[in-house]
Amino acid sequence: MITRMSSLFLRTLREDPADAEVPSHKLLVRAGYVRRVAPGGYSWLPLGLRVLRNIEAVVREEMDAFGAQEIQFPALLPKEPYEATNRWEEYGPNIFRLKDRKGADYLLGPTHEELFTLTVKGEYSSYKDYPVTLYQIQTKYRDEARPRAGILRGREFLMKDSYSFDLTDEGLSKSYQDHRDAYIRIFDRLGLEYVVVSATSGAMGGSASEEFLAVAETGEDTFVRSTESGYAANVEAVTTPAPPEQPIDDKPAAQVHHTPNTPTIETLVDFLNANTDRKFTAADTLKNVLVKLKHPGKDWELLAVAVPGDREVDFKRLEAAFEPAEVAMLEESDFAKNPFLVKGYIGPGAIQANGIRFLADPRVVRGTAWVTGADKADHHVVDLVAGRDFTPDGVIDVAEVREGDPSPDGKGVLVAARGIEIGHIFQLGRKYANAFSLDALGPDSKPVRITMGSYGIGVSRLVAAIAEQSHDDRGLIWPRNVAPADVHVVIAGKDETLVSAGEDFAKQLSARGLKVLLDDRKTSPGVKFADAELVGIPTILVIGRGLANGVVEVKDRKSGDRVEVPVAEAVDHLVQVVRG
Amino acid sequence: MITRMSSLFLRTLREDPADAEVPSHKLLVRAGYVRRVAPGGYSWLPLGLRVLRNIEAVVREEMDAFGAQEIQFPALLPKEPYEATNRWEEYGPNIFRLKDRKGADYLLGPTHEELFTLTVKGEYSSYKDYPVTLYQIQTKYRDEARPRAGILRGREFLMKDSYSFDLTDEGLSKSYQDHRDAYIRIFDRLGLEYVVVSATSGAMGGSASEEFLAVAETGEDTFVRSTESGYAANVEAVTTPAPPEQPIDDKPAAQVHHTPNTPTIETLVDFLNANTDRKFTAADTLKNVLVKLKHPGKDWELLAVAVPGDREVDFKRLEAAFEPAEVAMLEESDFAKNPFLVKGYIGPGAIQANGIRFLADPRVVRGTAWVTGADKADHHVVDLVAGRDFTPDGVIDVAEVREGDPSPDGKGVLVAARGIEIGHIFQLGRKYANAFSLDALGPDSKPVRITMGSYGIGVSRLVAAIAEQSHDDRGLIWPRNVAPADVHVVIAGKDETLVSAGEDFAKQLSARGLKVLLDDRKTSPGVKFADAELVGIPTILVIGRGLANGVVEVKDRKSGDRVEVPVAEAVDHLVQVVRG
Repeated sequence: MITRMSSLFLRTLREDPADAEVPSHKLLVRAGYVRRVAPGGYSWLPLGLRVLRNIEAVVREEMDAFGAQEIQFPALLPKEPYEATNRWEEYGPNIFRLKDRKGADYLLGPTHEELFTLTVKGEYSSYKDYPVTLYQIQTKYRDEARPRAGILRGREFLMKDSYSFDLTDEGLSKSYQDHRDAYIRIFDRLGLEYVVVSATSGAMGGSASEEFLAVAETGEDTFVRSTESGYAANVEAVTTPAPPEQPIDDKPAAQVHHTPNTPTIETLVDFLNANTDRKFTAADTLKNVLVKLKHPGKDWELLAVAVPGDREVDFKRLEAAFEPAEVAMLEESDFAKNPFLVKGYIGPGAIQANGIRFLADPRVVRGTAWVTGADKADHHVVDLVAGRDFTPDGVIDVAEVREGDPSPDGKGVLVAARGIEIGHIFQLGRKYANAFSLDALGPDSKPVRITMGSYGIGVSRLVAAIAEQSHDDRGLIWPRNVAPADVHVVIAGKDETLVSAGEDFAKQLSARGLKVLLDDRKTSPGVKFADAELVGIPTILVIGRGLANGVVEVKDRKSGDRVEVPVAEAVDHLVQVVRG
Repeated sequence: MITRMSSLFLRTLREDPADAEVPSHKLLVRAGYVRRVAPGGYSWLPLGLRVLRNIEAVVREEMDAFGAQEIQFPALLPKEPYEATNRWEEYGPNIFRLKDRKGADYLLGPTHEELFTLTVKGEYSSYKDYPVTLYQIQTKYRDEARPRAGILRGREFLMKDSYSFDLTDEGLSKSYQDHRDAYIRIFDRLGLEYVVVSATSGAMGGSASEEFLAVAETGEDTFVRSTESGYAANVEAVTTPAPPEQPIDDKPAAQVHHTPNTPTIETLVDFLNANTDRKFTAADTLKNVLVKLKHPGKDWELLAVAVPGDREVDFKRLEAAFEPAEVAMLEESDFAKNPFLVKGYIGPGAIQANGIRFLADPRVVRGTAWVTGADKADHHVVDLVAGRDFTPDGVIDVAEVREGDPSPDGKGVLVAARGIEIGHIFQLGRKYANAFSLDALGPDSKPVRITMGSYGIGVSRLVAAIAEQSHDDRGLIWPRNVAPADVHVVIAGKDETLVSAGEDFAKQLSARGLKVLLDDRKTSPGVKFADAELVGIPTILVIGRGLANGVVEVKDRKSGDRVEVPVAEAVDHLVQVVRG
């Protein structure tokens, strides 16, 4: 296939678009791949659409390869199924809602769990029908508060969403693993650098959930990775290794100190170091943070979280640990209602004596000694030993994670990184099956409640994620599997010999099955070279002055390497380069 | 590729769905191709999606083949461009409108003229850039008052819409012709029986517009076709041949008759036949119908339309003739204001004497004699001769068209038929270019206003249109180019020999590049045969009892013909059948 730039609907731009902040957005607009139509709404111009379709094809192949079956739903969906699962409300302002001419309520689908569940329920009835995995590659809508970064976070986007339906938890695990394996193949084929991170800690016995993040400085998601192993995780999912327990017998007895004007860790440590002959650091103190929790349908309850004084409680980790419960900090009125809580001097004693659940950081193991509040203004207790003087009601891993913390796998230390979420796999369990009573009739004629998984890939976002990882200051650099063409043939001059050689090469390469972008425009070689760098086809064939000496130049867009190749060998050479 | 029915997400239904009236709707649901999700909203199950994609591929190939370039727009579009062309208002309740979280107005795109125009304006500036034709295959939305017939008239549907941009009228004609040729290739490849009809008469100097109608009794569009030629047209576009002019000299003089109580054609003809010695028919009378017209931005004006008394004025033809003007019948108050109009007895005399424009049917040629109103209650004039006693201000072709009327091409007579609109090609002209000032800078540095064409194919509707044309009472019968598989292999029995032979055939056929639907279910041969008929793959390979004698049966779904083929020859035979 030959695409001629003389007639291609493509105009490159020299300037970055005013609204673009990240490289992928700037370059995809400048190189004529996408155009903004509305906030978070983009049109795909010819080259952009080809990249999108190439990605879509890889996703489809790998989904089909493990037996997932493609179907397609409307985007315009009736309210009722989403009311049944309460998502009509839960989505709040994040979905687009509308009414039809009769006043009936509709939404533009953000994901399709409800519809897939109802469809399987409509077709299947026996345990013999299961398992089944269905998917679609379909336009989705979310009314993002702040659409940003071009197609990276749009309001209308293309997504592959799939759903597995299994009779058993083991079946779900297998479906989940099938998706995980397929996602790895997909992202590998797309040439992405990515990590698979646990999405939540699963502290509440939640189901498995992992995110695939394309590593990119401009990504919205933060994660940590080990300096010395492949370990990577969302900060919410990092597990802090517990240190070894310590003997208790040799510890000095706990002792209350008058520590005037020490409501903060810093003032406390300074005071102790000035007034005792021991050296304390913030890590020797235990900070007891009071929060409140509200489980769905229950009242608010108080909870105390103890973390080493050199760390804050990470509120996002705290929320993740108790999801779907709501978490909030205490207000003044809460303290007023519980006068035993002496702000700045709270200790385990008053907390536990008053029936408040008391959870401690994993570092608070048996035998560790702490400086902490003595439940009395201006007083702290020193050498309060876990397992001797207090025993937490449980462990909670919600302290902030810091660069330099040991990696949970014991190899290296953690460093922070940023990524773009490109895939998410999630064991839903029976939430949707329960909402719609999706049962299979078992071999014993008893109903078996189906368990589901939900799996997404941001297909249009991948175009931006790849561009984000693969570009330089001159333009885009497409991985071979997604590039809109295999070879960019540049006719570097107006001389008729060059033009006819260019046409001839394009035909020969096309005849060999390569997709050719032929720059047959009547513009200067300089403009053509700049556009070739910007557009980012991986291999560039330059037909220029060397032709008189029987050579053409083959340039690798990524490395910048150029080789001169004799005309007679050029086609074979290029086929070899492209096919690898 | 082998698709196994044992795991395919497909459940056929024995009963027609309660809401289905037309065969395509019944069969596409029963055969498990589509499922209803909302009024006018359907999901595509695996086999249905394959048919849809096959059709899409044919459309794409033929569009690409003549140089149209594929791009893709969002479906969620801002209001502003549609306000600029007044379509935000004009669409009335026929489009879906919504607001985003900030209260900004959006619509779900019904067609994309505005966006394409703006996009071309954004990229192109010089006459050297033109012509260009862009297209998309994209989901469209219309809030139909009465979604019906399944995917035949849905509210969310897949459409190919393309737009041509030319510098000159001649260029537009060529772009139009390119589309017309491509559409013919597309619909031919899809195996459709269709006609191309002029959509409007072009009486007002309007631009060319043709519709492609798939012939189907259940179609919503009526048209007429010749019994003896390929002539076909929308009723609005039929042109009535004018009869030869007649000599005037030998005609008797016009004579006013007292015709009491003859306000209708029927009473008039009866009276004349009873009271004169000549024989009159309704066709000898001239009926003068008064209507009023309102051109955009102008006042209402009266208009008289004269048609032979045996025909009514066809209001749709009348509207088409004056589009975009509004047309209405006169109200009592209009008659009151114009007392010279004597209801039931209106003649050309009073009309023309009072300055009302008077247009006559093409049959009213010079020399024809008519019985018509004498502008006085209970009086008619006989032998009023055109060109002698009155001369119309012009010709208007809006009388009803009847079966049996001569075909305008002089061959045969017209018969009525019904069709499904599957394509529409339309020379828009400069409407949208004017709205958005889409100009190219000409070679003389003066702006050239671009002229556009708009062209649509209802891609998802085609699935239904093909099904409507190609089925019998047992099920669907897919044309080969759109069928979800090439061969349906039915293992007609549970015997292990049959099963392994079926598997083996499927593998061999797949290895030869055929798409195989393999019925490897553990159900009875009867159920399998019925499902094979319902699902409608064009060729069915039955592996049954004959296998013991070394033969299998190949059945043609359409003709019902069965041939026994020796096992060793079966694969070659099937490849031959499929490849043709």
